[in-house]
Amino acid sequence: MTDEDYMTLALGEAQKALQADEIPIGCIIVSQNRIIGRGHNLTETLQDVTAHAEIQAITAAAATLGGKYLKDCTLYVTVEPCIMCAGAIGWAQISRLVYGTSDEKKGYTRFAPQALHPKCSITQGVRADECKQLIQTFFKNKRS
Amino acid sequence: MTDEDYMTLALGEAQKALQADEIPIGCIIVSQNRIIGRGHNLTETLQDVTAHAEIQAITAAAATLGGKYLKDCTLYVTVEPCIMCAGAIGWAQISRLVYGTSDEKKGYTRFAPQALHPKCSITQGVRADECKQLIQTFFKNKRS
Repeated sequence: MTDEDYMTLALGEAQKALQADEIPIGCIIVSQNRIIGRGHNLTETLQDVTAHAEIQAITAAAATLGGKYLKDCTLYVTVEPCIMCAGAIGWAQISRLVYGTSDEKKGYTRFAPQALHPKCSITQGVRADECKQLIQTFFKNKRS
Repeated sequence: MTDEDYMTLALGEAQKALQADEIPIGCIIVSQNRIIGRGHNLTETLQDVTAHAEIQAITAAAATLGGKYLKDCTLYVTVEPCIMCAGAIGWAQISRLVYGTSDEKKGYTRFAPQALHPKCSITQGVRADECKQLIQTFFKNKRS
């Protein structure tokens, strides 16, 4: 499985959000080639601003592992994490972050560049066009 | 009820965390003089890094109100929020933040000063000594 393959699975999670009329963002967490957590944005469904894809995937992954630190895990998310989610990724000590499209308005790289664990490696731009198009189509349909 | 009174209630939440052998941080959310959400740190109990006092209180308050935005609410927390929690406070559009003691190592003012909603007003230092002492005693006992 490549980064592109895993991002395709994260896009599948984002599709679940879209079907629930949520901003389509999806996330999976992988440890030793095994998916240990999944999540998609559910802020409207749950009426809870904390119900971002990453937060749910981190909670799920910790439950799978039986421990709160996700040190040797890779988190794949379709959109650059926000401040809140980057903070959570930092607390979980996730060792690698892979994201699709950047979020210039709300992304952590602009507002909290030191949020992640210092040893976390970051890859951006994986399936970026598909990740971005999903978001753009959602908002375009909302406005029309 | 004054800010000091509400912070005393947040300290009561922190005591619950202490009794569960958790880092003692507590939070309450108030709307129109009514407590609509409470939370205390449960990261060890739940083995979940996202289980901070503020995150739980925000989720509880949104459930109480039946809506995810907490625009006319005040969040009282015994310790300066971290990046993750400040991001959540920002998303919830909480209009006022009151915290006790500062957190120079992990506090949002150092790492994500723009995390809160631009209109959020901030008061710090309420019952700061009690809030700080509770944390310091916890860590002192852990080390001994």
